[in-house]
Amino acid sequence: MLDKSIISNLEKIVGKEYVQTDKTSLICYSYDATQRKFLPAAVVHPGTTQEISRIMALANQHQIPIYPRGAGSGFTGGSLPTTSNGIVLGLTRLDRILDIDEENLVATVEPGVVTEDFQKAVEKVGLFYPPDPASLKMSTLGGNVAECAGGPRCVKYGVTKDYIIGLEIVTPTGDIITTGGPTMKGVVGYDLTKLICGSEGTLAIITKIIIKLLPLPDAKKTMLVLFDSIDGAAQAVSSIIRSKIIPATLEFMDGRTLDCVRDATSLQVPDNARAVLIIEVDGDREFLDKQAHRIAEIIKPLGVVETRIAETPAESDALWQIRRSVSASLRRVNPDKFNEDICVPRSKVPDMIRKIDKISDKYGIPIVNFGHAGDGNIHVNIMIDSKIPGEQEKADLAIADVFAGTLELGGTMSGEHGVGIMKAPFVGMELGKAAIDYMKTIKRAPPQQYPQPGKFFSDVKQNIEDRL
Amino acid sequence: MLDKSIISNLEKIVGKEYVQTDKTSLICYSYDATQRKFLPAAVVHPGTTQEISRIMALANQHQIPIYPRGAGSGFTGGSLPTTSNGIVLGLTRLDRILDIDEENLVATVEPGVVTEDFQKAVEKVGLFYPPDPASLKMSTLGGNVAECAGGPRCVKYGVTKDYIIGLEIVTPTGDIITTGGPTMKGVVGYDLTKLICGSEGTLAIITKIIIKLLPLPDAKKTMLVLFDSIDGAAQAVSSIIRSKIIPATLEFMDGRTLDCVRDATSLQVPDNARAVLIIEVDGDREFLDKQAHRIAEIIKPLGVVETRIAETPAESDALWQIRRSVSASLRRVNPDKFNEDICVPRSKVPDMIRKIDKISDKYGIPIVNFGHAGDGNIHVNIMIDSKIPGEQEKADLAIADVFAGTLELGGTMSGEHGVGIMKAPFVGMELGKAAIDYMKTIKRAPPQQYPQPGKFFSDVKQNIEDRL
Repeated sequence: MLDKSIISNLEKIVGKEYVQTDKTSLICYSYDATQRKFLPAAVVHPGTTQEISRIMALANQHQIPIYPRGAGSGFTGGSLPTTSNGIVLGLTRLDRILDIDEENLVATVEPGVVTEDFQKAVEKVGLFYPPDPASLKMSTLGGNVAECAGGPRCVKYGVTKDYIIGLEIVTPTGDIITTGGPTMKGVVGYDLTKLICGSEGTLAIITKIIIKLLPLPDAKKTMLVLFDSIDGAAQAVSSIIRSKIIPATLEFMDGRTLDCVRDATSLQVPDNARAVLIIEVDGDREFLDKQAHRIAEIIKPLGVVETRIAETPAESDALWQIRRSVSASLRRVNPDKFNEDICVPRSKVPDMIRKIDKISDKYGIPIVNFGHAGDGNIHVNIMIDSKIPGEQEKADLAIADVFAGTLELGGTMSGEHGVGIMKAPFVGMELGKAAIDYMKTIKRAPPQQYPQPGKFFSDVKQNIEDRL
Repeated sequence: MLDKSIISNLEKIVGKEYVQTDKTSLICYSYDATQRKFLPAAVVHPGTTQEISRIMALANQHQIPIYPRGAGSGFTGGSLPTTSNGIVLGLTRLDRILDIDEENLVATVEPGVVTEDFQKAVEKVGLFYPPDPASLKMSTLGGNVAECAGGPRCVKYGVTKDYIIGLEIVTPTGDIITTGGPTMKGVVGYDLTKLICGSEGTLAIITKIIIKLLPLPDAKKTMLVLFDSIDGAAQAVSSIIRSKIIPATLEFMDGRTLDCVRDATSLQVPDNARAVLIIEVDGDREFLDKQAHRIAEIIKPLGVVETRIAETPAESDALWQIRRSVSASLRRVNPDKFNEDICVPRSKVPDMIRKIDKISDKYGIPIVNFGHAGDGNIHVNIMIDSKIPGEQEKADLAIADVFAGTLELGGTMSGEHGVGIMKAPFVGMELGKAAIDYMKTIKRAPPQQYPQPGKFFSDVKQNIEDRL
């Protein structure tokens, strides 16, 4: 699909071995965690910011869409090359941790560093990078920044954006811009750093990331509490926080999720448990026991079926087993899963779960919910067998209903996964026309050929597997 | 300067009593904390978002510059009406706290609410709004958001931006946009909320603010430590944080500041003290004593001259006396003060202080430094008597040298005061051309008549007092 001269120019920029146009390679870069496939015209793997700058200038000159890609672990299609002449810009060669400044608690990394590798590297010197998306063993920091990834620890520590204090980016015309810097404060100019965070690769290519770190907490303590209702669990979340304890993690699973786990595993889940909270407190070791028992005291009147407090790391691991068994348990319900990540005000979680239960009943599709109760961030899992005629259509309607219900409660249709192509058709439900127009002027028209055409605002939805 | 029909249209929108064009009123709205004066053509005081929308549409139609204003307490001219046909948009009538949601720890306010009034209101129900700019008794939350205000507690709790999760804004054409919302997470669309924070009124008028709150800490404990060198004090800051204690406040004053205090007051400041840290820890009451003594232990080898730990609120108040006496003490040195708020990586504070001491000696102008050591945010106070010929010019050169030195150390020329007109001439030293171009396209050209022309990017510097 691409002119031969473009390919040869790309080869001149990055070297022949880093440009791929063979079908096998193109297929390898055609999909992500959404299970949708779009074949790119080429894949290029630059090794430096300068090379990326030259690629962007070339692409801009020839109006060729660029699709930046980290590990391809996103849930909304952020890395999918949705146009047939698209070039995937693979960023995994930029995988160096450039600096860990132990005195200032600041690190500088390239975008291709895997999240968990970075966490381990800073923990080795007693520091802490809190954002912990479920994909952390595979996802890259560049992707985390592009999507503004979250995770269980956000209730206490905030999301990816809260740790990003500076960036190096390459604009669509190939300009290299440094935003922010290694200082803890800074108010000179518009905050391009936070603008790029969560912009899903639609504004610029991220080539360097400056990250604020924290001291690594001494220790953590895990407890698991089973409740007889989702209301009790939600009330527990509010009561814990109001008691001035902010747990590092406040994960919940609803009754339907517990049913799946009970059916699929040998884990002990009492029949009358309709919700579970996994609570983790961290900080000064000698303080944690006291906090855990204070939490147990506070929530006692809220319909607690059972409280388990881990005394050892092994016991903590056992408590998490119930959460880790969810994915496998769900697969026994139905083979295909649509995972939406709505977020509502914390106190609205029970109302939202009830709405979702009704939607599930209305369409006759199993929907199970778990997620980050402390943030009101619910992972809504719509389980279908897409081979059964009509199921996909039902799922689409159910998703639209879930989003509508979320917005009624003052929520947002994405707490941490982003828009990409999966939620782009629905964005107009949440953002008004004036807001979308404002954003569109930020991602402005040519001559600058912005990356990621057809995402974020548009309604690209169809699969193009037939091009394979 | 304004056409009569414009004035009468403004009167139709807000009511006659809320449009001022008499000279006395214009003078009242001609200045802020920078001591520069610019006479507006009119002052208008809208009472609702709808009125602001209609004013913006009118101003856009007639290409009249709008200058939003809260309390006028800014240090960089953010609220100054720098063009002669400018209309000051006074926002103090929008002063309602609309909601404090105790369950979700979220408040909604109008922009004219005074910062301290809001803090007291949330503290009354056991909640906490940490940002604490020195102007908090007078400054408004709208101004705090526009400038992204900081304060002593930022080292632990972050800046204004970190608490703003949603806004209602009116664009230059009068569109009303809601950004973000009351959820703890949200990644749908570009983060307009954080883009508006710190944009100094140049992109839109803020009409509603959604604020994330924390539980109010149980108690706090204050200690004051005198060091024999600034290096010892800086090392102490790093050591405290590396020991996993993040104090709520880590304020410092340099040796020259202590000299002023010693000369001007009867406060006990030992002769060999060349730096002071005021350290405040907050949290669980029974934990604080332990933390204070652990801090005293950690910093003991770092040239400590004296450590004072407050055991009562009255003693804490006495420790703060040394900090509160600074302004009055400085006034005895020289009548005019230029207060710059540079920010460097924490570990670079001693290098920066040494650079500033050299600049002070070079120009023969007293420069004293204090500020937020935990953030590396130094308030550089350049003391002159502007009635002495040549002093102002020397101060201008010294300021440029201070900024150049800051940038050499990887710092920024403003940690919390903003750009406005005071730092606009220097912005090009910090931000590259590509970054400025990028920001300019965000604040794009007419037909949309953006508020605050001649600020942020340009070099309006002259006083126009002669117009008075």
